[in-house]
Amino acid sequence: MQTEIERKFLVKSDGFKKDAHQFYDIKQGFLNRDPQRTVRIRIKNQKGFITVKGLSSKDGLSRLEWEKEIDLKDAQELLDLCEMPIIYKTRHEVTVGKHTFEIDEFKGKHQGLIIAEIELQHQKENFIKPDWLGEEVTGNKAYYNSQL
Amino acid sequence: MQTEIERKFLVKSDGFKKDAHQFYDIKQGFLNRDPQRTVRIRIKNQKGFITVKGLSSKDGLSRLEWEKEIDLKDAQELLDLCEMPIIYKTRHEVTVGKHTFEIDEFKGKHQGLIIAEIELQHQKENFIKPDWLGEEVTGNKAYYNSQL
Repeated sequence: MQTEIERKFLVKSDGFKKDAHQFYDIKQGFLNRDPQRTVRIRIKNQKGFITVKGLSSKDGLSRLEWEKEIDLKDAQELLDLCEMPIIYKTRHEVTVGKHTFEIDEFKGKHQGLIIAEIELQHQKENFIKPDWLGEEVTGNKAYYNSQL
Repeated sequence: MQTEIERKFLVKSDGFKKDAHQFYDIKQGFLNRDPQRTVRIRIKNQKGFITVKGLSSKDGLSRLEWEKEIDLKDAQELLDLCEMPIIYKTRHEVTVGKHTFEIDEFKGKHQGLIIAEIELQHQKENFIKPDWLGEEVTGNKAYYNSQL
């Protein structure tokens, strides 16, 4: 089990798209949306995953995370057990300086919502903020995927 | 993902103990107790498991089940994220005729409760009922481990 340190931002323009070097579709659902013990099923690039996350630290920056790859067919069946709605999004990866932003463009119910995340090695690490990066929403539960 | 067909009974005496050919301690907790999408973490024989179960069929006999072995250390950490209380029990296996009963003797909060389960290949399969087998509680949610 690892601790994930990440910061999360809204995205104010689609200027990031021209710099994306990778993108793929994600389909995911939750077997539990409780932030104390979130259980997520995800299909990404035709691979299945189960992920458990614990509570965030008080500053919202770090969170316990455990993930395991599972059979694609199992993931599809487990998605059927998940709470509605299932989330569909396209993930774009954009490298800026030494860091890679993961930018999620939501579809369906949350069409129009775009969120960028950056994973850091330590809590005070600096990184370049590109033009398209908007308001920081790190630790804001309203933007947890489990709460969408 | 498989469908599990099983019947569950209370146990009215400890007569089963002399016939038990195997027993081991189980420690388990739940990341979700919702019967629609139960997520269980279990340590059994120093091995870790994550298990997801869906809703039971209307007759309570069968239930979708998916299980995967995970690292023991991960299971220990995931148990810390589970809802309280953690369940401790000793499982005894007793073979009667062609079938094996799994008999759980609960400890701690549920001391005194003993439940026997038998897994069947099809819903109308016959099996021998030994003397110590008590009232059938198949499909009774009060005896789901997730509800204890």
